[in-house]
Amino acid sequence: MTDLANHKEPLYIIKIGGNVIDNPTGLDSFLRAFSNIEAKKILVHGGGKIATAIGEKSGIQSKYIDGRRITDDATIDLVTMVYGGLVNKKMVADLQSINCNAIGITGADANLLPAKKRPVKEINYGWVGDVSAEDIDSKMWLLFLENNLVPVVAPLTHDGNGHMLNTNADTIASILAVNLSSYYEVQLVFCFEKNGVLLNVDDENSVVKQLDPDSYHQLKESKSLFAGILPKIDNAFDAINKGVKEVLIGNSSQLSVLLNGESGTKISKK
Amino acid sequence: MTDLANHKEPLYIIKIGGNVIDNPTGLDSFLRAFSNIEAKKILVHGGGKIATAIGEKSGIQSKYIDGRRITDDATIDLVTMVYGGLVNKKMVADLQSINCNAIGITGADANLLPAKKRPVKEINYGWVGDVSAEDIDSKMWLLFLENNLVPVVAPLTHDGNGHMLNTNADTIASILAVNLSSYYEVQLVFCFEKNGVLLNVDDENSVVKQLDPDSYHQLKESKSLFAGILPKIDNAFDAINKGVKEVLIGNSSQLSVLLNGESGTKISKK
Repeated sequence: MTDLANHKEPLYIIKIGGNVIDNPTGLDSFLRAFSNIEAKKILVHGGGKIATAIGEKSGIQSKYIDGRRITDDATIDLVTMVYGGLVNKKMVADLQSINCNAIGITGADANLLPAKKRPVKEINYGWVGDVSAEDIDSKMWLLFLENNLVPVVAPLTHDGNGHMLNTNADTIASILAVNLSSYYEVQLVFCFEKNGVLLNVDDENSVVKQLDPDSYHQLKESKSLFAGILPKIDNAFDAINKGVKEVLIGNSSQLSVLLNGESGTKISKK
Repeated sequence: MTDLANHKEPLYIIKIGGNVIDNPTGLDSFLRAFSNIEAKKILVHGGGKIATAIGEKSGIQSKYIDGRRITDDATIDLVTMVYGGLVNKKMVADLQSINCNAIGITGADANLLPAKKRPVKEINYGWVGDVSAEDIDSKMWLLFLENNLVPVVAPLTHDGNGHMLNTNADTIASILAVNLSSYYEVQLVFCFEKNGVLLNVDDENSVVKQLDPDSYHQLKESKSLFAGILPKIDNAFDAINKGVKEVLIGNSSQLSVLLNGESGTKISKK
């Protein structure tokens, strides 16, 4: 925290997707780089294909309506087991072995991420939870961070009525970043399989190094960006407008150079 | 903690076995009674048949050598998923819905239960961990308890080298009770399917209400007790000799009367 004359301590909130988790060698070297970050930090992880694989083995099929994944009773049990148990605890045990005092949590634990079950409109998403920065009580997060614990967050929340909920890991990372920006200088980092925001989606060397509202506007106007990345960038600017210092987007295999500015895309106010 | 003139605050460490977990109605009413305990508390849970059932569905067979369960690679993943994920988080979400600020943990989380992989002698138990009271760093437990968190502990530890380990829940409850006796007046409570220590194993009304070293010695001499219960009682006296105030053994469906002394067996120094 150390809020002396507005100088806040840095906090890294780093999100990794399923593709990192599905690759044991990649995950191992990512975790080493993560452990080496000296500042306070939080890791938010997605799920990966392992839940689908384990689900298929035990006869639980992924269900989709109009291309959207539905979390029915069997699926919420499956992801609670796989994301909250297997994936989360393996990562925690790994981090503990490399000098990082990780604590694996879901949003139910210590009520860290209260959520609302998504209302049924055209689609009944099932046990899916929506979270917002305002609903998070920072107190418990501060207790952990100030005691040098490193939260490792599974993409699961709870409804306060005894039900676990499936929740998007990108969203968890973003709202946590916004919430904790009152106490820390938050760097929100999205790690994925690409080198950053690309001008040409097939060319990993076409990374846009820096984006501010003006340059983003220009690139959008000239249709220079792949449409699929636009929601990610919009969310990044939204987080920045709500207090997050900057957002980094880059390759999970390059975490240390991503953090020191030598790779990836940096999104900031100016 | 409040250690004024040797008067320590009470702490309940309560262990429930798999039979409670396998019975949703029983579990629900147990958790309500647990949540109603006003003092500081820790819940340690076993596994239950659900791991075996899920394992069989996904083609993981329980392995035994000379009647002893072996934890191979597939089995440690299975129990990490089922005990550390499904069973643990469902209980945490339930407790959160009834006014109990539960936090689900394994021994890897925050390094709360460091363990040693059991050495291979006649039998290779696989990924099984042995724990001892001296190896536990009380600091993090105190942090949680003093901040009114209620740890819900899965029967899993870690070896510090990146591996999760399967560990007996009774043992975890006992060593935790011994370790935390320096700070709290610990009541260690073993809940199971019987009404307590029975003089006649077929008669639930034959509960031995109180055991101290003398009365235990007499009952043992006269062979009045079922042999299967003797190790549990020996462990209880061991915990008491190491600082635990008393040990209660009784039925999980009678937690509140067990705690106020109206049912079950109370084991104490005198």
